[in-house]
Amino acid sequence: MASRLPLSGQEEEASSSTSSAPSNSDPAHAQRRPSRADDDDDGYDEDGADDLDMFGTNESGADVWAEDPLDQPMSFKRKQKQSILSQPGRLLSVMTGNRLGTSPNTRSPNLSGTSTPSHLPGLDTPTRSNGSGATLNGPKDGLPVDWYVEGPGRRVGYDDLTAIDWIFEYTKERQRLRVLYSSATGIVGYIQQFLDASQIWVILVLTGIAVGALAAAIDVTSDWLGDLKAGYCSSGPDGGAFYLNRGFCCLGYDQGAKCVGWKPWAAALGITSAGGKWFIEYFFFLLLSVTFALCAAILVKEYGIYAKHSGIPEIKTVLGGFIIRRFLGLWTLITKSLGLVLAVASGMWLGKEGPLVHVACCCANLFIKLFPNVNGNEARKREVLSAAAASGISVAFGSPIGGVLFSLEQLSYYFPDKTMWQSFVCAMTAAVMLQAFDPFRSGKLVLYQVKYTSNWHGFELVPFAILGIMGGIYGGLFIKVNMAVARWKKSTNWPIPGPVTQVVMVALLTALVNYPNLYMRAQSSELVSSLLSDCSQVLDDPFGLCKTGAASAGTIVLLLFAAVLGFFLASITFGLQIPAGIILPSMAIGALTGRAVGIIMEIWQHNHPGFLPFASYCDPDTKINCITPGVYAIIGAAATLAGVTRMTVSIVVITFELTGALTYVLPIMVAVMLSKWVGDAFSRRGIYESWIHFNGYPFLDSGDDGSGAQSIPDIPAGQIMTRVEDLVVLTAAGHTMASLRAVLESCPHRGFPVVSDPRDAVLLGYISRAELVYNLRTAAAPPRALPPETECFFGRQPLAADPRTTLDLRPWMDQTPFTLPARSSLHLAASYFQKLGVRYVLFTDRGALVGLLTKKDCWVVLHGLAEDAGDHDDHRRGRAGGFGAAGAGRAREDGEGLEERGLLGRGGGGGGDGDADGDDEPISPGVQRGGIL
Amino acid sequence: MASRLPLSGQEEEASSSTSSAPSNSDPAHAQRRPSRADDDDDGYDEDGADDLDMFGTNESGADVWAEDPLDQPMSFKRKQKQSILSQPGRLLSVMTGNRLGTSPNTRSPNLSGTSTPSHLPGLDTPTRSNGSGATLNGPKDGLPVDWYVEGPGRRVGYDDLTAIDWIFEYTKERQRLRVLYSSATGIVGYIQQFLDASQIWVILVLTGIAVGALAAAIDVTSDWLGDLKAGYCSSGPDGGAFYLNRGFCCLGYDQGAKCVGWKPWAAALGITSAGGKWFIEYFFFLLLSVTFALCAAILVKEYGIYAKHSGIPEIKTVLGGFIIRRFLGLWTLITKSLGLVLAVASGMWLGKEGPLVHVACCCANLFIKLFPNVNGNEARKREVLSAAAASGISVAFGSPIGGVLFSLEQLSYYFPDKTMWQSFVCAMTAAVMLQAFDPFRSGKLVLYQVKYTSNWHGFELVPFAILGIMGGIYGGLFIKVNMAVARWKKSTNWPIPGPVTQVVMVALLTALVNYPNLYMRAQSSELVSSLLSDCSQVLDDPFGLCKTGAASAGTIVLLLFAAVLGFFLASITFGLQIPAGIILPSMAIGALTGRAVGIIMEIWQHNHPGFLPFASYCDPDTKINCITPGVYAIIGAAATLAGVTRMTVSIVVITFELTGALTYVLPIMVAVMLSKWVGDAFSRRGIYESWIHFNGYPFLDSGDDGSGAQSIPDIPAGQIMTRVEDLVVLTAAGHTMASLRAVLESCPHRGFPVVSDPRDAVLLGYISRAELVYNLRTAAAPPRALPPETECFFGRQPLAADPRTTLDLRPWMDQTPFTLPARSSLHLAASYFQKLGVRYVLFTDRGALVGLLTKKDCWVVLHGLAEDAGDHDDHRRGRAGGFGAAGAGRAREDGEGLEERGLLGRGGGGGGDGDADGDDEPISPGVQRGGIL
Repeated sequence: MASRLPLSGQEEEASSSTSSAPSNSDPAHAQRRPSRADDDDDGYDEDGADDLDMFGTNESGADVWAEDPLDQPMSFKRKQKQSILSQPGRLLSVMTGNRLGTSPNTRSPNLSGTSTPSHLPGLDTPTRSNGSGATLNGPKDGLPVDWYVEGPGRRVGYDDLTAIDWIFEYTKERQRLRVLYSSATGIVGYIQQFLDASQIWVILVLTGIAVGALAAAIDVTSDWLGDLKAGYCSSGPDGGAFYLNRGFCCLGYDQGAKCVGWKPWAAALGITSAGGKWFIEYFFFLLLSVTFALCAAILVKEYGIYAKHSGIPEIKTVLGGFIIRRFLGLWTLITKSLGLVLAVASGMWLGKEGPLVHVACCCANLFIKLFPNVNGNEARKREVLSAAAASGISVAFGSPIGGVLFSLEQLSYYFPDKTMWQSFVCAMTAAVMLQAFDPFRSGKLVLYQVKYTSNWHGFELVPFAILGIMGGIYGGLFIKVNMAVARWKKSTNWPIPGPVTQVVMVALLTALVNYPNLYMRAQSSELVSSLLSDCSQVLDDPFGLCKTGAASAGTIVLLLFAAVLGFFLASITFGLQIPAGIILPSMAIGALTGRAVGIIMEIWQHNHPGFLPFASYCDPDTKINCITPGVYAIIGAAATLAGVTRMTVSIVVITFELTGALTYVLPIMVAVMLSKWVGDAFSRRGIYESWIHFNGYPFLDSGDDGSGAQSIPDIPAGQIMTRVEDLVVLTAAGHTMASLRAVLESCPHRGFPVVSDPRDAVLLGYISRAELVYNLRTAAAPPRALPPETECFFGRQPLAADPRTTLDLRPWMDQTPFTLPARSSLHLAASYFQKLGVRYVLFTDRGALVGLLTKKDCWVVLHGLAEDAGDHDDHRRGRAGGFGAAGAGRAREDGEGLEERGLLGRGGGGGGDGDADGDDEPISPGVQRGGIL
Repeated sequence: MASRLPLSGQEEEASSSTSSAPSNSDPAHAQRRPSRADDDDDGYDEDGADDLDMFGTNESGADVWAEDPLDQPMSFKRKQKQSILSQPGRLLSVMTGNRLGTSPNTRSPNLSGTSTPSHLPGLDTPTRSNGSGATLNGPKDGLPVDWYVEGPGRRVGYDDLTAIDWIFEYTKERQRLRVLYSSATGIVGYIQQFLDASQIWVILVLTGIAVGALAAAIDVTSDWLGDLKAGYCSSGPDGGAFYLNRGFCCLGYDQGAKCVGWKPWAAALGITSAGGKWFIEYFFFLLLSVTFALCAAILVKEYGIYAKHSGIPEIKTVLGGFIIRRFLGLWTLITKSLGLVLAVASGMWLGKEGPLVHVACCCANLFIKLFPNVNGNEARKREVLSAAAASGISVAFGSPIGGVLFSLEQLSYYFPDKTMWQSFVCAMTAAVMLQAFDPFRSGKLVLYQVKYTSNWHGFELVPFAILGIMGGIYGGLFIKVNMAVARWKKSTNWPIPGPVTQVVMVALLTALVNYPNLYMRAQSSELVSSLLSDCSQVLDDPFGLCKTGAASAGTIVLLLFAAVLGFFLASITFGLQIPAGIILPSMAIGALTGRAVGIIMEIWQHNHPGFLPFASYCDPDTKINCITPGVYAIIGAAATLAGVTRMTVSIVVITFELTGALTYVLPIMVAVMLSKWVGDAFSRRGIYESWIHFNGYPFLDSGDDGSGAQSIPDIPAGQIMTRVEDLVVLTAAGHTMASLRAVLESCPHRGFPVVSDPRDAVLLGYISRAELVYNLRTAAAPPRALPPETECFFGRQPLAADPRTTLDLRPWMDQTPFTLPARSSLHLAASYFQKLGVRYVLFTDRGALVGLLTKKDCWVVLHGLAEDAGDHDDHRRGRAGGFGAAGAGRAREDGEGLEERGLLGRGGGGGGDGDADGDDEPISPGVQRGGIL
């Protein structure tokens, strides 16, 4: 654990070391510890634990090597424990939470007695797998060495836009915990353990509080800005002030009564004629809508490109084990929050639910940074982010359980039980905070909270089912239209305007269309709230939804008209470079349709009370309540949401929490189910999956086996693996530093299998490019300064070899790579990637290497079969080219010069060297290369 | 797919073949298809699909073998498609849902023109991996052959008390789906697909309906029987009848008013003196309590031993991938339902929630039997059972979402997203059904549904937290006491009475104690309902809970006294051989304590309204409502439940659904969290896990990595694997049928790795005992009738070998076993077992076999390290002895002569041969055996 907390004095240095190009020798790394083999050569003793590791610290290096440790995998556990407990200094430092050797001058006692000069600042580089990208982060020396040497090998940090190794991260975490627990004797140790365990809770509770507060602020501000389009609150005798929205400005007035404080723009400008009034107000509406949208677009473009869009496809990808730097950084949080306020206020057809999830994840990520133990582990970080994501939906709908299920159903990749509870705590904290802030001063958690007085009747299942089917059709069509727009924008040869201009154009169009239509002029959330409400409980009816008789026919037409317009506006809006969710627009469209159907039913029942179902179910005395159009609206909303996102349980639970009654769950369930089925008939992918696919994000769905049967071809993995003939492999012996450097220069591949010799090709392990580059560089630099002709070994060194003049790369090699027989089905290989979370699988036949398959190869096969066929000769990207063209390349294109600044926005911008868009193992089967070296 | 539907005429035969002892040659299997190799020898053509498989159907067998198919893993997919689509007969039969060759005389057209006599009845044995245990179920010929030959090999069914192979089952399912989808052209195919996909839904909706109905019936009946202890409903002028419970008998009377129809026993017998009345009623109470308990115990003992206990530990084990035959059969369902009614009516301290989950699983299992496609796949069956389990909790608490989360959090092992939705549909159907039946005629789903009028105040968090801590202490103590009782009963040398007598004794004790105490005399569900209710909404107060002033001091004493007594009664009751859950007793104890604390708070606030927190939070005008003791009761109930079961989200959601208000979620959350933490300090295991551990069920928790860090030792898997020196391995060539039989007779091991030759020991595959036994038997029997000196091959046969006179076992061997390097950590091996669901992992070093680790070995290491050390020399059980002594052996002991009758109660009792309690691979490292043969 200890060494994973960076040295205070060294942090800066590591962060500022921006160089990461493979052949770029950086002096800053020069005095870092190159490898285990030169332990004695540069003569330092780092933290004492090394004394007891398998290499020993005695100066007789040759003796150590004669006894090959690989043949003695026996008593690691005892040794490791001893290495912690027997050293008071270490124990103390673990207990007090400080790292070892906190200042360069304190050294822990050295048991073996070999006291060597310590020049710490360059030795123990911090492990910052999150940090500055391709900078080589050095060995994790504090951990018991055997695990690295025997197991998956040492690692440097992850590059941007690469996949993480779940197994490695969890092993690292277990190792850390083991050190912590074995040091935990007595009350201090117990407290230490407790503090360690409570870190997650602190992060999540802080996240919940922050999300609740942010959501309240966003609600209030966007409300105010939204109302500003119509007028402003003048400081009158009632104490109104410009910063109040209409609701607060008119607080105390009865609904519907004339509010004195509130000044529409026409009135403010003193215009009285009806036409002029309408024109002026239209003008202000247009002006402010476009201004808000423009501000949001500029904000996003200039300050945080990752703040665009809903963020959910990217969150899914990140949670699936991918590194996207800056995506959850502070700047993204700020731009997303501000941009969201402006975008919502502009009145465009977008929602704040998806972006709120992104905001929640950003918040969590910021708090994670306070806790290096969590921050240093990409897998644990993803657990926390999964948990935090729930709070976004929780505050958006006032539905904490719905939020948890949303995270579980839609977002998360790995969601163990404990994460569910963490998620629940975070979601609940956020909901309680929001309720405490009470931004609407209604005592209700959200605007849409509703309560119906009457029950539904059996015959209503027919229109409910029709709404479900319509929701599915809507969802399917929406995805098709939205993706067609996105594809057209991507592929067209026309000179389409830039992203900001696009936003302005759409905002202008939206405002032009919105104003004349009563329903569309309002903010979507108000509209949905009105559509869902029960007429018998509404005092004020701003939208005329409760009209009866002939007037309601006009209402129906207007509702359906608004739904159709909303459909098109939403499909051109979702995908623009502003923070924009799709959940609320979908719900609004569904609610508009549903309300229309409900009113039709109401009229029908009113006019033909003798019609059989009405006669048998409706009590004629209370016939006004027989049909509640609000129920149809909520069912329509749930159905369209299901059609667009293809979620099921989450939607039912969210609507269940909105209505608070078990009564309506059955019809909602039926509608959601039908909608999902109909939508699936259009395409298997929901809107988020479609965008993941469109953007080419490397998301390997851990999904169900039913759909998997279609998507994963039934072939042996051997057919798609990169065969050994096409692989660049390294032999255990026979390489010099120069030859390895030549291999690195000639091939872009991000990793190399290591075999015994060219003839037998018995698999020994796998070494990634990053580790190789790092070792070659450090070995060539002082203090070792090995000449280029130095021999390098990946296997057992000859007895004659002098460890001082050779380079042993075994500790940096994954000596236990995952292997499968080449005959195994592709499905099995895919389940290694999905369920175990590995990054590459090697195929062996009776011990001999026969091929390699990377997670990204697998992804390309499963998702990119059709599109990305022509990209294989892109050498710089290697195999990742197939992906890079659509995925990482896209992130790069959209980034418009973004620099890699670390997932957390900290760190030294180590990217931009051309490696960042490759995966770790981009070996293309199309690239015929050297064969076995 | 086709061949997995059994032949109508053959079903019986297969079911009636009860022999399964390895060396027992059963004539019924004689004419079954022994293996691929004799395809041409016995000269039949089965379903036409074989014509196009890689073996061809041409009669020149030697040519086929000369061209080794293992070297050509190329174009399987195309071939397979062709084999389906090109055959109209097959296509039709797939479309119409019938299996191929439904009658022995219809044969599908044979494309290759080789028409051979067909003697179907013995050829295509149904695949009934669920079915009659160790009976050898024959090859699954309808599936494309390549998968079996190249991949995991063919399998016969699972034995009782063995682990399933998830990967194998899912591969089977994918293969089935692929055949279905490739045959699905046109509308008929689409309908076929639709019907196939809808099977799960039909099962779940039927399960939901059945569970709702059963729960209503159980509620009504147990209510009636419970009331019968006090009196009966006489057929009076109001139309009362003996079959009415007190509530219905007195329907129409105001609560509290004297009910004419209801006759207490004393009144019925004409006894009027107060003492005599009390005595007579006490007597009847005792008599009927004991009678009910006796009936339940006898029912369980005689008709369904698996109906005992709550069933949740066993369900967890089954869902984790273990076969326990009869556990979910019809008899278990009947005995559990009836026994549950009687047990609940007896007034013992037990609940019906856990047993209802078991009942729900039994129902689902019955409906699964209607659909052979689901029934034939153990993994899919477990998905359905996971989904169905939710309905049990759904009807118990009227909490469908809580049920889903209960299944997710507590029960399920593998719970993909689609299962969540299925689970939700099932739970919701059950809840809606129960509401439709409305067993309590209250319009409410459950007795406990509550609604509080007032909110909670900040200062109340202190008593809430105290309740949480008390709940944790209670839970920890309860588990300790309960397990101590169970261990004592198991280990004592005293002559303890039999299970039925134990039940009678506990029932008598309970009744004796219960009657004098007002709170304990009532049924637990009524008690909980009253404890949870809000005094301001209660008209009738049978328990005197709403007394004020001095009288409430007595109430407090009585409540706490009841809680303490209940604690001890519950801890001796849970574990008896009657259907008995622990959820409701825990809630009752918690509610009693909570109510007491609530009343104390109320009195305190009443007497000292000026005390700071009261003064600042409570409005003195409405001080009666300042403290609601019912809220304390529900928080106490949630806390004890959390302490006992260690669930979190489920409990909060269940209580959330009971109260229906977000308001109380925060205090409930705090209490549950504290309770869990305190409980975890006592022991990591909840009550169900403790019982799993106590019973030695082979449940490998897929749980979180945090706790895993402690429980899984940090050693290389190589240290605990069975080393190759201690393994019985088979060589690829050089074996005859006689030598293999000798190996089988001399070793009890349930499987054998296959290596190339004794020197190199290059791993080729793995063959299980069952497959080996089956092949040797069928090859020895007509029509092949191979002599014992026949050579057997596991690898490539020599070119000279004649397939007619040799036995090729490759198709039955797992040729792609999961392998790991021996240096891999145990944790990695454990995650293979947990996440991939394999049963064994082989360890190789550069292709050579170095060891074997089975799921059960892993389980023994992780769970049985301490207890089961002395059992390794039990030869008959092999390695499983360590487990068998506590687990399978226990199931056997408790079974008291139960015969293995199939998981579904059907099938031909194939067990009882001494194999059933062994795992597939019970190779004990302690048993030094032959070494490499």
